[in-house]
Amino acid sequence: MTEIKSNDNKNNKNTRTQEHKNTVLLAHGSGGRLSHQLIRDLFAKHFDNDYLRSLSDSAEIDLTDPKIAFTTDSYVVKPLTFPGGNIGKLAICGTVNDLAVAGATPLFISCGFIIEEGISFELLEEIVSSMAKTALDAGVQIVTGDTKVVEKGSADGCFINTAGIGIRRDDLKIALNRIEPGDAIIVNGTIGDHGMAVMASREGLGLSGNLESDCAPLNNLVDGIVSTDIKFMRDPTRGGLATTVCEIAEETGYNVELDALKLPISESVQGIAEVLGIDPIYSANEGKVIIVVGKKAADATLEKLKAHPLGKEATIIGHVTDEKNGRVLMKTEIGTHRQVSMLSGAQLPRIC
Amino acid sequence: MTEIKSNDNKNNKNTRTQEHKNTVLLAHGSGGRLSHQLIRDLFAKHFDNDYLRSLSDSAEIDLTDPKIAFTTDSYVVKPLTFPGGNIGKLAICGTVNDLAVAGATPLFISCGFIIEEGISFELLEEIVSSMAKTALDAGVQIVTGDTKVVEKGSADGCFINTAGIGIRRDDLKIALNRIEPGDAIIVNGTIGDHGMAVMASREGLGLSGNLESDCAPLNNLVDGIVSTDIKFMRDPTRGGLATTVCEIAEETGYNVELDALKLPISESVQGIAEVLGIDPIYSANEGKVIIVVGKKAADATLEKLKAHPLGKEATIIGHVTDEKNGRVLMKTEIGTHRQVSMLSGAQLPRIC
Repeated sequence: MTEIKSNDNKNNKNTRTQEHKNTVLLAHGSGGRLSHQLIRDLFAKHFDNDYLRSLSDSAEIDLTDPKIAFTTDSYVVKPLTFPGGNIGKLAICGTVNDLAVAGATPLFISCGFIIEEGISFELLEEIVSSMAKTALDAGVQIVTGDTKVVEKGSADGCFINTAGIGIRRDDLKIALNRIEPGDAIIVNGTIGDHGMAVMASREGLGLSGNLESDCAPLNNLVDGIVSTDIKFMRDPTRGGLATTVCEIAEETGYNVELDALKLPISESVQGIAEVLGIDPIYSANEGKVIIVVGKKAADATLEKLKAHPLGKEATIIGHVTDEKNGRVLMKTEIGTHRQVSMLSGAQLPRIC
Repeated sequence: MTEIKSNDNKNNKNTRTQEHKNTVLLAHGSGGRLSHQLIRDLFAKHFDNDYLRSLSDSAEIDLTDPKIAFTTDSYVVKPLTFPGGNIGKLAICGTVNDLAVAGATPLFISCGFIIEEGISFELLEEIVSSMAKTALDAGVQIVTGDTKVVEKGSADGCFINTAGIGIRRDDLKIALNRIEPGDAIIVNGTIGDHGMAVMASREGLGLSGNLESDCAPLNNLVDGIVSTDIKFMRDPTRGGLATTVCEIAEETGYNVELDALKLPISESVQGIAEVLGIDPIYSANEGKVIIVVGKKAADATLEKLKAHPLGKEATIIGHVTDEKNGRVLMKTEIGTHRQVSMLSGAQLPRIC
């Protein structure tokens, strides 16, 4: 673990000094000496790259192409670590995925930490090293950042914001107005895993079994399917698959029909969902993408997805119909249809 | 005020319904129906532009030049509003200024809100409209954003992260290694105003008089001085003027001599500083820039600064010496010298 020495506690008792050595102090966010130490000994160490090494307040980047996508998300997940990941991994995956599904190649990430005084350096380093590893996996660089520390009780451990810049791909044209009746709706694997893993972890449910978050960067998976004329993609995070498909229906005006029997849901997720009384279609995903593709290209897309580790369980779960009510209908197990609504309450707060 | 209707409180009592109508609920951060309403009726309304209107998770931008600067900052100032500004104005100014002092033209801003459940829509709209107005003044567009809501007690009202993209100017070459002995150190006006205004407001000190934050976007001021061969700029925010000048000295290795008699400090700031026992040189500024300029160009730079409303009280406050200890020395009122250190404790938490 990085030991970040504090030089303002010389007059305190030994126990207090010991505690101070292992936890973040308000002074680490002051912009002064301790802030510089924290940046150098923790962030710059793990995120090391030429852009960060200049230690200026902004990164100077020469992009290879001026056509960019720009996105941001804050992460407030509770607890900070959960089966399959932690807030740091999530903060990289979420922003990488927003760029990837927009048809851009994610390249540069900023990160802003808001840290509650008293968090241990051990936990903070676990989060930061996880961000570094995930960034490496996704092929992005964390090029600029900021740290604020707030008093105990003024934030919940740690919040992270990431913003991301990607170069828009020439070989992908993602646009809602390309969607038309007959298009297939595909998801790259089981749904609801992230939300259920976090909820099970938060509630201390022992029955989670092999349940873990699906949290993963999807840019590499998307790279593999671009040749199949994808019309639209979106990552079904907060609000789950149902909310994302409802957005697609509302924004295009077409109805979408989903097939309940086709929805890939793991036994662990189904089990936890029943205990918590939450429908997995509203549970957040952090390694899933909903893909809308022309009918003729659907099988080829599915095949390419299945060839990737993150797409092995890819499935066609429904299609766009020619009715124009902007609704989502679910074909149930017994062949009837029920309308699916967007998430309307606060079923799952602090899930990402 | 925007009335954001909640559709999930029909069964509550009238008083609760009333309260719900006026405050942010956890459900506004769920990613579902209420999140969409909040985005449409508050953020999209105030920040309105073509990029945001697409309501996708990322903004598609065609930059005019691929040479960019990229920066981020989170804002946790307490209280959320203070004389001269609020957290929203600050969140735009801070990021605009980081880009401007790096020699870039700020253009595109992302914003991530972390909101505590129960904050009033009235306050939130005051913050958001202030961001919109400041962005307009600074000539930047808020093109993408994110909102998270956390439970009461899990955050302190509202935190905001902004990230910014600017195009690097061809006519400015900001680099520490251009600094050499004899260079003048200039500040564009009185120091310590922001930190003291926030502290006075937080502590409920009645004697603040006409004290207010200097919070302002500096890109227009910087535009006016680029022709004078500026070598380096940095905005002295957290840690104040002293910390920024110490950074310059440490990073170049040269000593810097400041002249205590030349430091522009208002009477109000001096008064509050004495009450609080804080040296104004460590108090944050949000509308100030430290400029390092060659000896010969110093007067011309000063003249150009004074011609701008944000530079009327610009002053040469010191110079780079040929001693190479990387120290800052302050020439005192009585002609002696004392060493100035970087801020080392947590004198002023939650100031920005």
